[in-house]
Amino acid sequence: MSQPKVSLYYKNVTAERIGAEHGISDAQFETLAQKTVAAVEKVNRDRRDGKTPYRDLPTNEAYPRSAKEVAAELKGKCEVFVVLGIGGSALGNIALQTALNPYMYNVDPAQRKGPQFFVFDNVDPVQFGSFLDWIGDRLDTTYFNVISKSGQTAETAAQFLIIRRMLLEKYGPAGAKEHIIATTDTSSGTMRKITDAEGYRSLVVPDGVGGRFSVLSPVGLLSAAVCGIDIDALLAGARAMDARVSGSDLRENPAAMNAAIQWHYYQRGKNISVMMPYAYALKDLADWYRQLWAESLGKARDCSGAEVFVGPTPVKALGATDQHSQVQLYREGPNDKVFTFLETKTFQRDVEIAASPESAPELKYLAGKPMSTLLNAEKLATEYALFKMDHRPCLTVLFDDISAATIGQFLYLYEVTTSIAGALFNIDAYDQPAVELGKKATFALMGRQGFEDVAGEIGPYRALDEDFLV
Amino acid sequence: MSQPKVSLYYKNVTAERIGAEHGISDAQFETLAQKTVAAVEKVNRDRRDGKTPYRDLPTNEAYPRSAKEVAAELKGKCEVFVVLGIGGSALGNIALQTALNPYMYNVDPAQRKGPQFFVFDNVDPVQFGSFLDWIGDRLDTTYFNVISKSGQTAETAAQFLIIRRMLLEKYGPAGAKEHIIATTDTSSGTMRKITDAEGYRSLVVPDGVGGRFSVLSPVGLLSAAVCGIDIDALLAGARAMDARVSGSDLRENPAAMNAAIQWHYYQRGKNISVMMPYAYALKDLADWYRQLWAESLGKARDCSGAEVFVGPTPVKALGATDQHSQVQLYREGPNDKVFTFLETKTFQRDVEIAASPESAPELKYLAGKPMSTLLNAEKLATEYALFKMDHRPCLTVLFDDISAATIGQFLYLYEVTTSIAGALFNIDAYDQPAVELGKKATFALMGRQGFEDVAGEIGPYRALDEDFLV
Repeated sequence: MSQPKVSLYYKNVTAERIGAEHGISDAQFETLAQKTVAAVEKVNRDRRDGKTPYRDLPTNEAYPRSAKEVAAELKGKCEVFVVLGIGGSALGNIALQTALNPYMYNVDPAQRKGPQFFVFDNVDPVQFGSFLDWIGDRLDTTYFNVISKSGQTAETAAQFLIIRRMLLEKYGPAGAKEHIIATTDTSSGTMRKITDAEGYRSLVVPDGVGGRFSVLSPVGLLSAAVCGIDIDALLAGARAMDARVSGSDLRENPAAMNAAIQWHYYQRGKNISVMMPYAYALKDLADWYRQLWAESLGKARDCSGAEVFVGPTPVKALGATDQHSQVQLYREGPNDKVFTFLETKTFQRDVEIAASPESAPELKYLAGKPMSTLLNAEKLATEYALFKMDHRPCLTVLFDDISAATIGQFLYLYEVTTSIAGALFNIDAYDQPAVELGKKATFALMGRQGFEDVAGEIGPYRALDEDFLV
Repeated sequence: MSQPKVSLYYKNVTAERIGAEHGISDAQFETLAQKTVAAVEKVNRDRRDGKTPYRDLPTNEAYPRSAKEVAAELKGKCEVFVVLGIGGSALGNIALQTALNPYMYNVDPAQRKGPQFFVFDNVDPVQFGSFLDWIGDRLDTTYFNVISKSGQTAETAAQFLIIRRMLLEKYGPAGAKEHIIATTDTSSGTMRKITDAEGYRSLVVPDGVGGRFSVLSPVGLLSAAVCGIDIDALLAGARAMDARVSGSDLRENPAAMNAAIQWHYYQRGKNISVMMPYAYALKDLADWYRQLWAESLGKARDCSGAEVFVGPTPVKALGATDQHSQVQLYREGPNDKVFTFLETKTFQRDVEIAASPESAPELKYLAGKPMSTLLNAEKLATEYALFKMDHRPCLTVLFDDISAATIGQFLYLYEVTTSIAGALFNIDAYDQPAVELGKKATFALMGRQGFEDVAGEIGPYRALDEDFLV
């Protein structure tokens, strides 16, 4: 049997299906095909030139080995595993967990092969305090994976300092260090210094791999391995996708086709890109995508330095749930969106819908049907309404199943899609200048030395003008 | 001491703050003020005419009493409480739970005053199956609240049939009915028939109150009461807000001001409305808002029947988390968004950030500071960057604290904001024609009798055209 596959279905964006006003004609596809050749070539060149080391993560052998070594060491003694990280240091971990472990993983011991798993990616004292109240009694069997390349990210640093104190108070320096695994830079930065000084185990955040492209590095692999996910299959899936996304023929390269269609619609005024998984397991992949897409493509300047202020806004919706929340707008609101459904042909398990009561024969149509049939019918019904009745462009990323192999394919597909889209938009898909600037304002407001000028600028805006408070 | 309050701060949308190109000038505010008078009057008239019964939920005494009666009955014998519902039958329940109960509520028995709480608002067999595996052993102490006005919603009906069978198999009809509480129509519909035939306890979904406006009815009140939330304070909060949202002077009516600003920016091409809470507790209010806003304002036709295809797209982001995911786009992407921050002046508790290690003096600026200071600094830093440096309009909904009283105010504020916005857009904010149509397609695909024509139309689209699969 061949490996399960992830494919892109794009017929429901064609003019044939949704009409000329909103569809893509054969001639437009031809133009896109030509335009995309150069974009793919640029992306391939960037890879050869060593500018996109994320591309080679799936073939790296040291990274999964290091993750499995730590996982093996923790096996049997770790009952709670906690990631402290934010953005790219959190979203991949969460996505893998939701995709590949049971819904009740943290609640039901019978359903997990690894420890309970938490990711903290915020600095909310009520939320974090609730966690601290609980974790205090089980520190002996709790391990913390602090993920930060620089160690300067304020949110992660704050969480880490609190946890570090808690461990030091209970175990002293020699004991505390056993409970911390740092995933950080190999040689420089704040977290590297602390790691060396205090003797933590550490894993690598590879050079040149931005947070949002790091899920297949130790950043994402460690928590996955600890929680029983088959990271070898995940990486094999990414390698299988790699073989499909380097060619310059749009019709043979799902990443190129995906990027081209998204870019095309942005030029036609559709500034919103909705990802709508029809499987709970795929829900947090949409959040991972939100970061990948927004940070990579939302840019004020293009590669020539000209002001462009571009970037589609990624939106996450969940099928069938959001049919009862967003689909009214999606169908009847402005035609300003491209929809990408995620659909799986097969589910890991099914549940049969039971017989209907005699008092309600109108529910008989559900009786005896698999729940998966209902869910996939809802997807087709929604898509049909959107493309056929409302002329809205619809893509589907079709999973043969939901497994480590297909999730690996999906992650890599979207990473390369993003690179190609970046080339089409002619922007740098790998930087995030505005995030860096925003950090300075936070430093200033927190009274950090060296940021007094910024603090002076923001100061006047601390106070509210009561005239504008209603 | 006066009651804690929720207010709207709008200075950072003014031309004075963000410039004339994207800001609202005094003259434009004047025009808005005039325009809004008629909208508020229409909304007040609709209320007097009995067209918006959601407006009077906060003064209804029977509804909270019925919820508290069931909660009192379950006290001591219910260890797991499960809502089966979707859309408006789920989002309010989830929002109240996240806002007013601890983060570790379901995990840590010491942190909860009520039963473990789950809401199922989907038909994913892997997710629901995981839950069924766990719940099987604890059915004796589990109670199910099925929420559906009609009982015909396919997702809720499917879940309900499965749970009903499970209970019947274990307890027989007399025992099974004890574990089910139906929240449904008082007199008609599928769920009412089943409820009467099988003898379930039941609570009321009030007539004329759409799902998205129902959180302050028994739809939202029961699970809140069962889980220890002070529903009297919640309703008192809503009443306090009601006293502030009926006047026609924009500058005295936060709902009118909010609606007017949102409507104004939509006319100026900002088709995306971002809600970004800076408190984990407020996170799921943004999901509740997503439905309220999208279903109410996303409409193909206006009140005169003319095609308009309007509706801002609501987007949820979470501070500080999404600074590391979305803010790059928000700052540098197109200026196509209105931002609404949710901020709280005080948190229920705080956590002090610990000392920094000697090896990392650069983290000293965090040491000894409350975590809440960091979180609110991040909010101000992000807002400052957006309005001051990038000329993007920013609103803040400011909470004195996060409590039942302020959450009640917030819910009512946004419901009335939506009504006024509906009047400004000149659309019917209370129907959802596209959702109703979408249901038919699902019925057809599931082989329900009477939908053969629709099935015939969709049939050809079941099969994929392999030429468009890459």
